[in-house]
Amino acid sequence: MNRPAIAAVLFLAATAVSVQAQQLKPEDQIKQRKSGYAVMGHNFASLAAMAQEKKPYNKEQAVRNAELVSVLSDYQKNFFGRGTDKGETKAKAEIWKNRADFDDKMEAMIGEARKLPQAARGDLASLKKAVGDTGAACKACHDDYRAK
Amino acid sequence: MNRPAIAAVLFLAATAVSVQAQQLKPEDQIKQRKSGYAVMGHNFASLAAMAQEKKPYNKEQAVRNAELVSVLSDYQKNFFGRGTDKGETKAKAEIWKNRADFDDKMEAMIGEARKLPQAARGDLASLKKAVGDTGAACKACHDDYRAK
Repeated sequence: MNRPAIAAVLFLAATAVSVQAQQLKPEDQIKQRKSGYAVMGHNFASLAAMAQEKKPYNKEQAVRNAELVSVLSDYQKNFFGRGTDKGETKAKAEIWKNRADFDDKMEAMIGEARKLPQAARGDLASLKKAVGDTGAACKACHDDYRAK
Repeated sequence: MNRPAIAAVLFLAATAVSVQAQQLKPEDQIKQRKSGYAVMGHNFASLAAMAQEKKPYNKEQAVRNAELVSVLSDYQKNFFGRGTDKGETKAKAEIWKNRADFDDKMEAMIGEARKLPQAARGDLASLKKAVGDTGAACKACHDDYRAK
């Protein structure tokens, strides 16, 4: 392919990726991302409590929590489209100003979250490590891009 | 085990199952179940649109949608605890009056939803079948237990 053709394909691919989010109204995108994070947050809190030995380690529950966090981790990224910086949201305007940095931090979090199920199937030590790494990746993004 | 011992074990098991939900305040349980259903609903709507050929069949997206629906399907059932019949919810009081029937319908839905990922990895025909069966199981419960 020559250079203009490659550029056209890349443009189409980028368009296709964003079509799903674009079809949703901003308030519905916000609802989806908040819902996903609410479920992720509850399940990650359960893992964190086990990792910190604030509640008993239960492997079956840890695996269920970890699978929910993992499968949801990259879901919300589709719902930070245009116009979703307003309304009932803690998302800061900096997301759209520093989009590449936000996306990098999002991908870093997703990468760590995807390791959780296997770690949960191991032992408490492997769970602690993965929970710590994922929690740090969550925090790195929250510090810059989520309002208190 | 003699009969009283068995009864004691069953009681403890039932208690353990409900501990997680009991620890959450009713409003937080409602938040969790509504959040889970919001994400499930969005993903199931995507599958239904493909099954009805209202949007193009995309296997990769279908598998992602199906995995989210499947992993979330049995999540919400933990959050229909005492006191969660009030507040911002479409859950009808009949849930707590006919709990065994509600639980049966919930389990039937979960059973169908768990078949979605494998069906989505097949072809459009297998997806249509699984989406139809899951949709019917959703509707059976909504008809009786969810306010319009």
